[in-house]
Amino acid sequence: MAENGAKPIRLGMVGGGTGAFIGQVHRIASRIDGDFELVAGALSSRPDVAKESGKNLGLAGDRIYTSYEEMAKAESTRPDGIQAVSIVTPNHMHFGPTKAFLEAGIHVICDKPITSSLDDARKLADIKPANGAKFLLTHNYTGYPLIRQARELVASGALGNIRVVQAEYAQDWLTEPADEDNKQAAWRTDPARSGAGGCIGDIGTHAYNLLRFVTGLKTEAVSADLTAFVPGRQLDDNVHIMLRFEGGAKGMLWASQVAVGKENGLQLRIYGDKGGLEWSQENPNYMWFTEFGKPRQLLTRGGSISVPPAASMNVRIPAGHPEGYLEAFATLYSQFAAVIRGEGAEFESLLPTMADGIEGMQFITASVKSSQDDSKWTRFADV
Amino acid sequence: MAENGAKPIRLGMVGGGTGAFIGQVHRIASRIDGDFELVAGALSSRPDVAKESGKNLGLAGDRIYTSYEEMAKAESTRPDGIQAVSIVTPNHMHFGPTKAFLEAGIHVICDKPITSSLDDARKLADIKPANGAKFLLTHNYTGYPLIRQARELVASGALGNIRVVQAEYAQDWLTEPADEDNKQAAWRTDPARSGAGGCIGDIGTHAYNLLRFVTGLKTEAVSADLTAFVPGRQLDDNVHIMLRFEGGAKGMLWASQVAVGKENGLQLRIYGDKGGLEWSQENPNYMWFTEFGKPRQLLTRGGSISVPPAASMNVRIPAGHPEGYLEAFATLYSQFAAVIRGEGAEFESLLPTMADGIEGMQFITASVKSSQDDSKWTRFADV
Amino acid sequence: MAENGAKPIRLGMVGGGTGAFIGQVHRIASRIDGDFELVAGALSSRPDVAKESGKNLGLAGDRIYTSYEEMAKAESTRPDGIQAVSIVTPNHMHFGPTKAFLEAGIHVICDKPITSSLDDARKLADIKPANGAKFLLTHNYTGYPLIRQARELVASGALGNIRVVQAEYAQDWLTEPADEDNKQAAWRTDPARSGAGGCIGDIGTHAYNLLRFVTGLKTEAVSADLTAFVPGRQLDDNVHIMLRFEGGAKGMLWASQVAVGKENGLQLRIYGDKGGLEWSQENPNYMWFTEFGKPRQLLTRGGSISVPPAASMNVRIPAGHPEGYLEAFATLYSQFAAVIRGEGAEFESLLPTMADGIEGMQFITASVKSSQDDSKWTRFADV
Amino acid sequence: MAENGAKPIRLGMVGGGTGAFIGQVHRIASRIDGDFELVAGALSSRPDVAKESGKNLGLAGDRIYTSYEEMAKAESTRPDGIQAVSIVTPNHMHFGPTKAFLEAGIHVICDKPITSSLDDARKLADIKPANGAKFLLTHNYTGYPLIRQARELVASGALGNIRVVQAEYAQDWLTEPADEDNKQAAWRTDPARSGAGGCIGDIGTHAYNLLRFVTGLKTEAVSADLTAFVPGRQLDDNVHIMLRFEGGAKGMLWASQVAVGKENGLQLRIYGDKGGLEWSQENPNYMWFTEFGKPRQLLTRGGSISVPPAASMNVRIPAGHPEGYLEAFATLYSQFAAVIRGEGAEFESLLPTMADGIEGMQFITASVKSSQDDSKWTRFADV
Repeated sequence: MAENGAKPIRLGMVGGGTGAFIGQVHRIASRIDGDFELVAGALSSRPDVAKESGKNLGLAGDRIYTSYEEMAKAESTRPDGIQAVSIVTPNHMHFGPTKAFLEAGIHVICDKPITSSLDDARKLADIKPANGAKFLLTHNYTGYPLIRQARELVASGALGNIRVVQAEYAQDWLTEPADEDNKQAAWRTDPARSGAGGCIGDIGTHAYNLLRFVTGLKTEAVSADLTAFVPGRQLDDNVHIMLRFEGGAKGMLWASQVAVGKENGLQLRIYGDKGGLEWSQENPNYMWFTEFGKPRQLLTRGGSISVPPAASMNVRIPAGHPEGYLEAFATLYSQFAAVIRGEGAEFESLLPTMADGIEGMQFITASVKSSQDDSKWTRFADV
Repeated sequence: MAENGAKPIRLGMVGGGTGAFIGQVHRIASRIDGDFELVAGALSSRPDVAKESGKNLGLAGDRIYTSYEEMAKAESTRPDGIQAVSIVTPNHMHFGPTKAFLEAGIHVICDKPITSSLDDARKLADIKPANGAKFLLTHNYTGYPLIRQARELVASGALGNIRVVQAEYAQDWLTEPADEDNKQAAWRTDPARSGAGGCIGDIGTHAYNLLRFVTGLKTEAVSADLTAFVPGRQLDDNVHIMLRFEGGAKGMLWASQVAVGKENGLQLRIYGDKGGLEWSQENPNYMWFTEFGKPRQLLTRGGSISVPPAASMNVRIPAGHPEGYLEAFATLYSQFAAVIRGEGAEFESLLPTMADGIEGMQFITASVKSSQDDSKWTRFADV
Repeated sequence: MAENGAKPIRLGMVGGGTGAFIGQVHRIASRIDGDFELVAGALSSRPDVAKESGKNLGLAGDRIYTSYEEMAKAESTRPDGIQAVSIVTPNHMHFGPTKAFLEAGIHVICDKPITSSLDDARKLADIKPANGAKFLLTHNYTGYPLIRQARELVASGALGNIRVVQAEYAQDWLTEPADEDNKQAAWRTDPARSGAGGCIGDIGTHAYNLLRFVTGLKTEAVSADLTAFVPGRQLDDNVHIMLRFEGGAKGMLWASQVAVGKENGLQLRIYGDKGGLEWSQENPNYMWFTEFGKPRQLLTRGGSISVPPAASMNVRIPAGHPEGYLEAFATLYSQFAAVIRGEGAEFESLLPTMADGIEGMQFITASVKSSQDDSKWTRFADV
Repeated sequence: MAENGAKPIRLGMVGGGTGAFIGQVHRIASRIDGDFELVAGALSSRPDVAKESGKNLGLAGDRIYTSYEEMAKAESTRPDGIQAVSIVTPNHMHFGPTKAFLEAGIHVICDKPITSSLDDARKLADIKPANGAKFLLTHNYTGYPLIRQARELVASGALGNIRVVQAEYAQDWLTEPADEDNKQAAWRTDPARSGAGGCIGDIGTHAYNLLRFVTGLKTEAVSADLTAFVPGRQLDDNVHIMLRFEGGAKGMLWASQVAVGKENGLQLRIYGDKGGLEWSQENPNYMWFTEFGKPRQLLTRGGSISVPPAASMNVRIPAGHPEGYLEAFATLYSQFAAVIRGEGAEFESLLPTMADGIEGMQFITASVKSSQDDSKWTRFADV
């Protein structure tokens, strides 16, 4: 039950069967603020796994499905049918379910990237959702309270005109060729399931989305150098990109899955002519804010601040008691619940949309193209 | 619904009405892993607040109570009555509800410290719970994954014989006299509601419990110097304690609510003749571990380790994706759920018990007594 | 040659022969700002070592002495005799040379602690130096620029009334019994050479001096628990002390040489009713400063500041280019050079004096006594 | 006097008059280990400043010169003439003095970059030094002990094959247009004195040299995007570069003088297929070293290590006592002194040479050219 007495929204899930990583994350996120109740699922494309997984999650037998099409059809007609669905499959399996549920009038919460190709993403934008069904893309890092505050700081002019943006997301888990039975690695390094981008699609898009969310800068073009360092790997595992933004700001983006010693090193640094900001996901409750000529300040989630607090920050517990990844994820869920209930107008501009998904695919597509063209500057307008 | 298909445990709550801090924390913690469902509450001693709060939480009208006695009686007799209750009232209101629910055969989850006096704590230990009702004291910091690992590291002998323990918990929110309408501050600085300890009871006990949980050392005596710095404050807001443990180890404990710049600076440092450990709550996903003569290693929650991982660690998401305060709290809830269901034998030794609660009161009582006796070493055996 | 064109001061050294640690530190410190030139030495009590060491340092043959008495006599009578002498022997060999050189009219730079007993220290205070010879005690950590700034911040009232002081100095190099041939360890663990204090004299006094230098608080009494953890060790290797200051402030001091993982963890934390400061020697170019209710600020040596810079800070290079231990040490040397030349009036109140040395011995003596009296509060006035 | 009894080398200086920054740094560096004695100078092109500055530094009147030509001529003929000279003028004034002194048989210590143009640098390489006069380029960051250790770690294979190198050097002191009277800023933003590179020449070359020194990778080509953000500035103040190395490694380099909040943020991160290293100049006594699949280790200067210590590390004081910028600089000076004395064969491969200077100019030239060609990959072989 939500803290404000609202009835939980009935939720389904596509993907997320036993052994999946991101499915459980979505489920926890949906529960934290009490806004959702999981009641149906097509949790795996393999019927036995789907059934076992559904049973483990306590779903009623008649609401454990083995195909998402069937689920969209059945749930949209039963009176207690799901109101929203979470799509947590590999990238190439985002398009079909998203289309099916939106057309069935069921709200969609979809993991990123939105699809495995830019074309598919654009097709999604042409869909006519039934009953005003809404779409949320879980660029979950935008839910961190200090990222919300960073966005408001930039918008307030506290940094002045943005000049330089340095974004990075470095991991090391693909340093060596993955074991055959590592499901997480298998689909992420397979073009048929991931699309044309490896590391850039898996984590580069997160870094990209984050810099866009915070700065509001519009990207003009990218110059990219993508590399697959591990012998035999088909998709990039390291990404070097230079960015140019409208208005003259410049940026760099580094994403890597072969940076030994890095776990989830997502970091954003922004410098304007009046101030600078630095934030790192691994210690997300802290953010450096410097006004030119003054000492660096360490802002904390929910703590004392030198500027107005982020109005859009979802603070559950006092400063110094760390919130983490799951709470940031849950903020997207709970604010989308408010939107679904018609009570979340102030959140609509904050939640990642289909347009963000399409731009993410532009980012991947333009970067891959630039890299193939010897790092030639490639305009988003041209992909 | 719990991830493993178990039906959620029906939960009630005493205290935690609108505006309360710790009640919401308990509710979120109970939801994260899907093991509990809140269905009843005596959320405030003021009937109007109790009703409004219950309504906000979506409780059925007939399960919103205005007294815990009534609730214990009613819920223990209805077929769908609560199986467990969370007690989140000020300290002086822990004893009554704990007794009532345990005697009604309902499992109790009680916030710390267990009572407002050592006598009360000892009386609780004499209660005969009906139906094998169990008791959990929410010393929530023991739920942090790296604290579990620290405990196992110490037990494994990786640090050798422990010599020195430095514990601290520093905040600054009571630096100035509290506003009249600050409910959190009001009862914490009032002997009638907090008991004889102020800062020592509120956060000193957390630091003390944590060092006991990790090291397993038995305390022999304390030498304490407690101070109320803010003019007019009746209870201590700064705590200096030296500790002596059986076997010869020594320790220091500092707790403060007037340390400007500190939010929730709970820190534990342990040094043995072979190794050392350092952990801080504000960045709880990291822990320093040093073997003598080797470089410091930074262990991460769920990350690569030089020693066996903590078997009792509850890791929900990969290393580098920070978990926080709420997840640590939730681990206590979900492992207590397993105990309630008879599936959690391996957790029983990990979860804070009534004995821990009594020892916490000994710590407070001995420290207050020592401070009154000009810091004379005071044995736990003598209070 | 000093940067300001002053002629270098002719310097001698007692102790500091080949293999000594602190002698080389003094020599480097004396050279950094060009204010001294080493021309004579009684570098070892063993004649062969004294000669070999003197030769290695390029001293003229007739200025390599084998006894400090001889050196004091000879140098005070030659026209180009030394103007100042550095005494870098073990503690029990501070008294004699200090007395001899001061009475010979030669300025003395003496390592800490001033003597190996409080009685000796007091006797030194009765000496009548010839020719206005001055005395400097190298509590070198007071030379760090941010420590100077901390002192001025406190004096300015930026922290308000000081309430709590937490000082510590933790190392791990004596975790195990020292090898026979470890000269540094040998004398430090020998009461005949160190005096009654082990760890407390070696590093505890540094932490104590630092808190006194920065806060200006006057100590009333200490309650101490000193321990020798390593089997067979005669002097303490771990020090737990509670402090009471005049005016009501309280403190804790922890010093240890058995804290595995610590190298030179000297740390000072000060909290007043308006602000807080935190500084650590291992990253000495940074200091946290918090005004109550505002975000923490990270002050940097020579960097942007929210308050007037320390007038007494000796900044040689820009912020962000770290200065370290040797530069802090050199600041004492160069400011003492200014005092010797009659140009350093503004430094006199900053440089550690004989009175500081006596107080350091009071600190050791009172702490040892308190520890022997089961941690009874022991007043400085009573030792 | 050097610690080993060697007579100090007689040193001259070109540039470094009153108010200069880097001149004083060179002088302190030359003194720290006692290997040099400053005896002559052409400290300014303005005769009055030259004289006043020479007097302040205590130089004999007849060794205060107003032109470097005159100084080279006079000093090379007097019996007590300088053996080495430090050149600390703006970039465009490096070529002339270097040529003059080398041809006069006087060893040259020259600040970086070596010249203001690649052509000049190549011309320098054709000079025939008299009397075997040697050349040192003060890429001072290579003197940091942990950078030496990093180099040896890479060479030992501890990181495996290097894949990714991320280098950066960010400052903020040129965020706004410089005041007219800021001499440091004036020449650095003036093409006539700095050459074609602004930020890239001033600090980008340091970051570049550092990555080359540590990794030993040979650069193939760069793709650069240089920007002058401050209105009216003629030279770049922000540098974005992608790098390709022989053998397939890739890199990124960011240099900026408009990154608000950065003081001297020089950082190097290196990832191979077996391990990773991370080091930052602002806390230079620490370095992260990770072996794939094991916890991160924090190596400290002179501290416990998991690998052989750097044989070429110049450690003056124990671990935990921070050394800084000046000591790193001094290491270049003292090891060059050993080379001059014919005792430093093991240092020759470590000290930055004329070849390094030429490569630095190639880096600047290729980057500027690439940036002008819309970031086209530009080979060092083609400039």
